[in-house]
Amino acid sequence: MASASSATPDTLPAWQTLRTHADQLKHVHLKTLFGDDPGRWQCFTRQVAGLTLDLSKQRWDEDTLEHLLALAEEAGVRGAIQALLSGKRVNTSENRPALHTALRLPRDASLIVDGEDVVPAVHESLERMAELVEKLHAGQWRGATGKPIEDVVNLGVGGSDLGPLMVTHALADFRPEGVHPIEVHFASTMDGSQMADYLSRFNPETTLFVLSSKSFTTIDTLSNADTARDWLTNRLARYGSMSASAELVVRQHFIGVSACPEKMSEWGVAPAHQLRFWDWVGGRYSLWGTIGLPIALVVGMANFHEFLAGAHSMDEHFAKVPLADNMPVLLALAGIWNVNFLDIRAHSILPYDGRLEYFAAYLEQLEMESNGKSVTRQGNTINYSTCPVLWGQLGPNAQHAFYQLLHQGTQPVVCDFIAPLRRYDEVENHDTRAHLKAQHRLALSNCFAQSRVLMLGDDALDDDGPRPQHKRYRGNQPSTTVLLDKLTPSTLGALIAMYEHKVFVQAMIWDINPFDQWGVELGKKIAGETQKILEHDGEIQSLDASSRGLIEAFWAAEDHE
Amino acid sequence: MASASSATPDTLPAWQTLRTHADQLKHVHLKTLFGDDPGRWQCFTRQVAGLTLDLSKQRWDEDTLEHLLALAEEAGVRGAIQALLSGKRVNTSENRPALHTALRLPRDASLIVDGEDVVPAVHESLERMAELVEKLHAGQWRGATGKPIEDVVNLGVGGSDLGPLMVTHALADFRPEGVHPIEVHFASTMDGSQMADYLSRFNPETTLFVLSSKSFTTIDTLSNADTARDWLTNRLARYGSMSASAELVVRQHFIGVSACPEKMSEWGVAPAHQLRFWDWVGGRYSLWGTIGLPIALVVGMANFHEFLAGAHSMDEHFAKVPLADNMPVLLALAGIWNVNFLDIRAHSILPYDGRLEYFAAYLEQLEMESNGKSVTRQGNTINYSTCPVLWGQLGPNAQHAFYQLLHQGTQPVVCDFIAPLRRYDEVENHDTRAHLKAQHRLALSNCFAQSRVLMLGDDALDDDGPRPQHKRYRGNQPSTTVLLDKLTPSTLGALIAMYEHKVFVQAMIWDINPFDQWGVELGKKIAGETQKILEHDGEIQSLDASSRGLIEAFWAAEDHE
Repeated sequence: MASASSATPDTLPAWQTLRTHADQLKHVHLKTLFGDDPGRWQCFTRQVAGLTLDLSKQRWDEDTLEHLLALAEEAGVRGAIQALLSGKRVNTSENRPALHTALRLPRDASLIVDGEDVVPAVHESLERMAELVEKLHAGQWRGATGKPIEDVVNLGVGGSDLGPLMVTHALADFRPEGVHPIEVHFASTMDGSQMADYLSRFNPETTLFVLSSKSFTTIDTLSNADTARDWLTNRLARYGSMSASAELVVRQHFIGVSACPEKMSEWGVAPAHQLRFWDWVGGRYSLWGTIGLPIALVVGMANFHEFLAGAHSMDEHFAKVPLADNMPVLLALAGIWNVNFLDIRAHSILPYDGRLEYFAAYLEQLEMESNGKSVTRQGNTINYSTCPVLWGQLGPNAQHAFYQLLHQGTQPVVCDFIAPLRRYDEVENHDTRAHLKAQHRLALSNCFAQSRVLMLGDDALDDDGPRPQHKRYRGNQPSTTVLLDKLTPSTLGALIAMYEHKVFVQAMIWDINPFDQWGVELGKKIAGETQKILEHDGEIQSLDASSRGLIEAFWAAEDHE
Repeated sequence: MASASSATPDTLPAWQTLRTHADQLKHVHLKTLFGDDPGRWQCFTRQVAGLTLDLSKQRWDEDTLEHLLALAEEAGVRGAIQALLSGKRVNTSENRPALHTALRLPRDASLIVDGEDVVPAVHESLERMAELVEKLHAGQWRGATGKPIEDVVNLGVGGSDLGPLMVTHALADFRPEGVHPIEVHFASTMDGSQMADYLSRFNPETTLFVLSSKSFTTIDTLSNADTARDWLTNRLARYGSMSASAELVVRQHFIGVSACPEKMSEWGVAPAHQLRFWDWVGGRYSLWGTIGLPIALVVGMANFHEFLAGAHSMDEHFAKVPLADNMPVLLALAGIWNVNFLDIRAHSILPYDGRLEYFAAYLEQLEMESNGKSVTRQGNTINYSTCPVLWGQLGPNAQHAFYQLLHQGTQPVVCDFIAPLRRYDEVENHDTRAHLKAQHRLALSNCFAQSRVLMLGDDALDDDGPRPQHKRYRGNQPSTTVLLDKLTPSTLGALIAMYEHKVFVQAMIWDINPFDQWGVELGKKIAGETQKILEHDGEIQSLDASSRGLIEAFWAAEDHE
């Protein structure tokens, strides 16, 4: 692949400079950095695509940023960005490109990969998706007994679940008017919990399942799918004169979304109800294409295209703007500074907007699955930190849950605060709108206040009189604030793309491959072996004492009817 | 308070011994510990109250445990347990007892605190709660226009939200039969997101709100309550001949749960619809009493009493069993070992049962709000780690999200795996039951396999042939497994109580007060000031450059109609 340096980052000159620089700066309190620099807001804030990124509350100064930008240059970030966007084989361990950005290229764009323009195929897949969406939105998709579909259940996990779940929740206000109402639901857990609930409540005649799995071998999803198929065929076979053949049931009640059409056909998904994507789209980057079907079902295709356009405008920014003004690059560098030079190994994601309820869970996957690695692209073991632990919760709720640890605990944590500036303009009832707008101002005030208190500690108070130690706050916890002009399909697309590119830039500096996930393979294999033993089809004596004890406890419970 | 030592833990002899011991053991791989000791399962496993606790996959040996038990003795844990359970003023900074265990004492028990038996008042409050539940379950609670209530929305946040939310989700299978159907919902976020959704969907005639707030001053909850009251009075005033006075609306559509009856009355909650609790119940421990109203509405009072009884049986165990066999104590000691001696600062909570979807969020509050502290009970600043960062997700889903980091990242993490042994016995349809039981075995197999792989790394594979570095696993990540015989009100009660007591024991060893949360106070104050400025009723010039920039961005967005 591209011009990435072959040296590990900790041997680069800028890394050494940063280490020395950190030895000094690490003793300077964040409030001092602010006190010394009235122009910090201008210096560390950038705006693009409806987003404002405020990095002024990071524990850094202009020199830090200069050294970090030098590190990015030395690590070959500029070349790597071009390699990513132009379809080079940046996923080195799997020898393929990572082309999620191609999924949001406009129709008139062109991107030649291995001699072929991928854009026409991308738009063809979107058109196929649009056809299915329109049929469902027109009430013309009928179940095996002739009734229009009303409930759609997405069966998928990981990348085939978190993205669509997060975005459909975030954009629920953007439902198109005048369409046949479709309720979209998600079942992801392999233990059948959500399925058990849905099967007890939904009408099989009007329920359709979307099987979303890149490989179409994901056991979590296929076990839910088998349970769904049996439920449908059993229930619909009983409708007397309206009874439906198993074949008809499977054809009318299942859509498949996968990079493996053969496996979809083998399972029984009708070719006309198959949506495809490509092996060059990673699961955790797949919401931009056909895996986004649940999103399109909730917000309509026009809004889905806005969502893609927002992400594309961030791609354009990422491709063209110098590193020093490049939002994803700056966000990445703040993270590198925190984890590698200030030893801050925990990162909290705190949206101040209930619609972003699943955003933290989404980012946990995006960041930890991409960059939770410890081997360089050349296969050497790493001796510096890579991805920190990410977790989060809606900010206002977390204030009443774990902010205590942020303010007075012993673990350093960096926080991302995320909030929309305007909200509730569309609420019709005047009084309700006024109340909800006041609630929005309340949430924003809390958002701004918390980052201020985390920074300043006790100094946020004017009257700093005598107080016992347990009422004191040391401050100095860094944070980033991301403001959205409004939460729309377009700004949400830009926000997600910003984080995707942040993850890529960090991976390039850490010299790791963010596009594979070999760490999840061994568990799948051992789970299969364990299940055999659990079901008395294997040799328990080969296992360790704990695994034996756990399985024997299960057997004892099974016997204990 | 009780016999806690006045020395900080790092000056205790056992702490010194543990430090030396850790210097040796820290280089021993977990698989070696297993290899050397065939009796590890027996040695490190305990069972009580329908729970099995497997601590054998911690990176410790019998000597470690012995030293840790010595530390617990030196830190005065035994005396502290008695002090807690007997109602001593263990909440030192607020000079009051922490008596959540009294909420689950049986009716015939007695606990004298400050010369008064608290048990009769506890059971009186449960009886008052039972009356309201029965009225709603009988369909006899009618809204202002005379229709029976069908939707109940709990307005609360933090302790008044997470506990009821987690438990109602976990025990949804335990709905009583033959009662008037009541759907229970939760609105917690101050930004009005959930309210905006509910108000657009629910019928005001049949919707009742529960205002849950210990202080009855929580602005998040009161702002949602104001929005709800206006919505109800506006909508119900329009029902023509059925029009309802504002007074009637407030009386018939609001229940209050608080430790401040005067404030409830002031807001307008009818005295007959007020449920009370006491200042000696901390918010994050309050689900056992009247704050548990939503739980009782979902599962019925009989199951609610089972839930209390399960917790009480763990209390009895905690009170009476020697430290070496005391489940909460052992769980606490494993945590101390990890965070203070192995420097593992991140802790992941991974239930393998979709019904426990909110369990990680619940524990995040319980642990981080209780023990995210850095000042001893004597007011000295601490120079050792206290609470680690906790986060989690349903285990099977997290396998497809952040397990990559657990298996191949650079951050050490300890995991708690939680799973029920038996499940789906009650599903009526034979085929569906067989499918769901297979899904349960699949989930258990994955649970057992993951802790095995985290422990052994590459050695979990028989054929350890040549593989590239990016396909290798170093293992040595410790974990705990908690098995529930079944997930029932009783075992869930015991599980929560186990973690509550774990948190207490750790606090006693760290010499911190787990029952206050001063760290959240300053943010509330600064948020109030910030809101004034945001609403042009304060002086922006006093703020730092970032806060000024953020507020000015809001003003610009507001002007930009």
